[in-house]
Amino acid sequence: MAKPCVSASPSSTPLLKDELDIVIPTIRNLDFLEMWRPFFQPYHLIIVQDGDPSKVIKVPEGFDYELYNRNDINKILGPKASCISFKDSACRCFGYMVSKKKYIYTIDDDCFVAKDPTGKEINALEQHIKNLLCPSTPFFFNTLYDPYRDGTDFVRGYPFSLREGAPTAVSHGLWLNIPDYDAPTQLVKPLERNTRYVDAVMTIPKGTLFPMCGMNLAFDRELIGPAMYFGLMGDGQPIGRYDDMWAGWCIKVICDHFGLGVKTGLPYIWHSKASNPFVNLKKEYKGIYWQEELIPFFQSVALPKECTSVQKCYLELSKQVKAKLGKVDDYFNKLADAMITWIEAWDELNPSTATAAKLPNGSSK
Amino acid sequence: MAKPCVSASPSSTPLLKDELDIVIPTIRNLDFLEMWRPFFQPYHLIIVQDGDPSKVIKVPEGFDYELYNRNDINKILGPKASCISFKDSACRCFGYMVSKKKYIYTIDDDCFVAKDPTGKEINALEQHIKNLLCPSTPFFFNTLYDPYRDGTDFVRGYPFSLREGAPTAVSHGLWLNIPDYDAPTQLVKPLERNTRYVDAVMTIPKGTLFPMCGMNLAFDRELIGPAMYFGLMGDGQPIGRYDDMWAGWCIKVICDHFGLGVKTGLPYIWHSKASNPFVNLKKEYKGIYWQEELIPFFQSVALPKECTSVQKCYLELSKQVKAKLGKVDDYFNKLADAMITWIEAWDELNPSTATAAKLPNGSSK
Repeated sequence: MAKPCVSASPSSTPLLKDELDIVIPTIRNLDFLEMWRPFFQPYHLIIVQDGDPSKVIKVPEGFDYELYNRNDINKILGPKASCISFKDSACRCFGYMVSKKKYIYTIDDDCFVAKDPTGKEINALEQHIKNLLCPSTPFFFNTLYDPYRDGTDFVRGYPFSLREGAPTAVSHGLWLNIPDYDAPTQLVKPLERNTRYVDAVMTIPKGTLFPMCGMNLAFDRELIGPAMYFGLMGDGQPIGRYDDMWAGWCIKVICDHFGLGVKTGLPYIWHSKASNPFVNLKKEYKGIYWQEELIPFFQSVALPKECTSVQKCYLELSKQVKAKLGKVDDYFNKLADAMITWIEAWDELNPSTATAAKLPNGSSK
Repeated sequence: MAKPCVSASPSSTPLLKDELDIVIPTIRNLDFLEMWRPFFQPYHLIIVQDGDPSKVIKVPEGFDYELYNRNDINKILGPKASCISFKDSACRCFGYMVSKKKYIYTIDDDCFVAKDPTGKEINALEQHIKNLLCPSTPFFFNTLYDPYRDGTDFVRGYPFSLREGAPTAVSHGLWLNIPDYDAPTQLVKPLERNTRYVDAVMTIPKGTLFPMCGMNLAFDRELIGPAMYFGLMGDGQPIGRYDDMWAGWCIKVICDHFGLGVKTGLPYIWHSKASNPFVNLKKEYKGIYWQEELIPFFQSVALPKECTSVQKCYLELSKQVKAKLGKVDDYFNKLADAMITWIEAWDELNPSTATAAKLPNGSSK
């Protein structure tokens, strides 16, 4: 039978205290951390400062952090810094690269602690960790949702051979209050707020793509880190607000290739402020159009058996992006090149994982 | 933008009053209908009496119903009655066949009205009807669940070309209290009860199989009826409790072929009584073993383009069952033959749909 796989620890040590970094992209003082103090303070923060590097970002006292601004990124990566976006929260992926931990949690600085229906404050990080430490079920759908959760299980008709599940690579959390809508939906429904708390975590089935939002996201760096590239957005690029989407499509096809799980649902954070829909529309409009070609592309991507590491998968993907999306717009040729640069930079900063990628299953499923 | 597709009617006419039959398989007096009276009384019931046909089944006053016992089934179908199971609730599918309505809701006689977290009694039938009348989203996952529901929508990154959705063929509802576990899980967790109300309806993505339970299920007969065959179970058969699972796997591959949607989630019913796990184990044990071969079979089924109606798909499926599962056990040869008999009987009782199957999409997606 499926057993809950993360027990409430009798000790007060926070889960994965020394194995997880919290990555925060920002352009402002991090006052929002005050509200997260009880949950985040034990962990190490990696702050990626976007925009003007001469600006000083204030971090509330008592937090353990390292901070990188654009000058730091340029110094560390040299010419390879070209793959890291500027003036766009896509720059956060630099934090994934410099981390030395097994797990990453990333959150936006306009996200606050949400409450569950009983009024209790939600420790989003703890729920993400549970999601990552419990297996996923990508090969068959369980109608009672996460079978590893306390009080539930696999239902009648669920094959026993699949009940061990698959390792979980990604945990995608949701948002109460301001929903993550595109500009056209924001314009049409300016007052819509998400008030529905859906008490479920589910695995996104193998073969199914989803829109991954970077606002409240956790992942296993060792399993999928090198594919968590947020692309070229913002300054000097023809597009914005597709950084997390791009990463989501890439990680999903690679997770599917390796039989790894991607979960969505709990935990919720409280998303405080809707971004300007007119500005968003300008950033998005090419993406809205291109996306119609991107989805069929990602739905039909086939990664050959020789792709035995995330890096190899990602380089193969960049090749296919150039071959098939280059004709949609020259931007995708640039992006394909940046994907290669990203992997080179990743391997430079993470030499131990560069040669032998640790994967649970050697072969594609 | 996605709009809620079923408005609360200002009139008091129940939704689809003359277009939906409620099918109930039973061996006992239908006292459970008393609790459902406010919700079911406007609708027509088709009661399929299982077991001893000389027994008189009492139906509470005021319900409009027709009742079929084994003698009736034999008389109506003649030799083709062999495809309808006896001494097993799989016999319910006879009710799908004799109905003349567009929609079917089927419910077990140990299922009662559940309450939502606010304490309000749940009109399960009304929620199923909403599920069936609103489109599904089988081609891409929406992280905020059903985008057509009031207060929610498609999220950023959801392709606009897919926002019209697909017609919904099946609505699979869930159960509070006694969960639908197999015998081994029942034995290990005799006291587990489902108390979690997950406030969501979701589409099961294209290409993903699920365990469909027949306890609380609605479907569009015109779209998928001829595939809703509950197989050979019970008296004289080596297996039980796989009737709904079999139907679920068959309807899912056929819905995928036609680009039709299958939903799961709300509404909940209150499942009152766990069946005997020792009896269940006897019925299930071959299924538990066979299932390990059935799932890969259904995962790899390919229906050719020529299969332009549900009937044609189903006959093709029976052919593949015989060719590929006949070697697992001779039972599957018998089942494959019964699948053909079922379609012949269906077409005999439903001559108007036999020749021209009305499908929204002429071709396979």
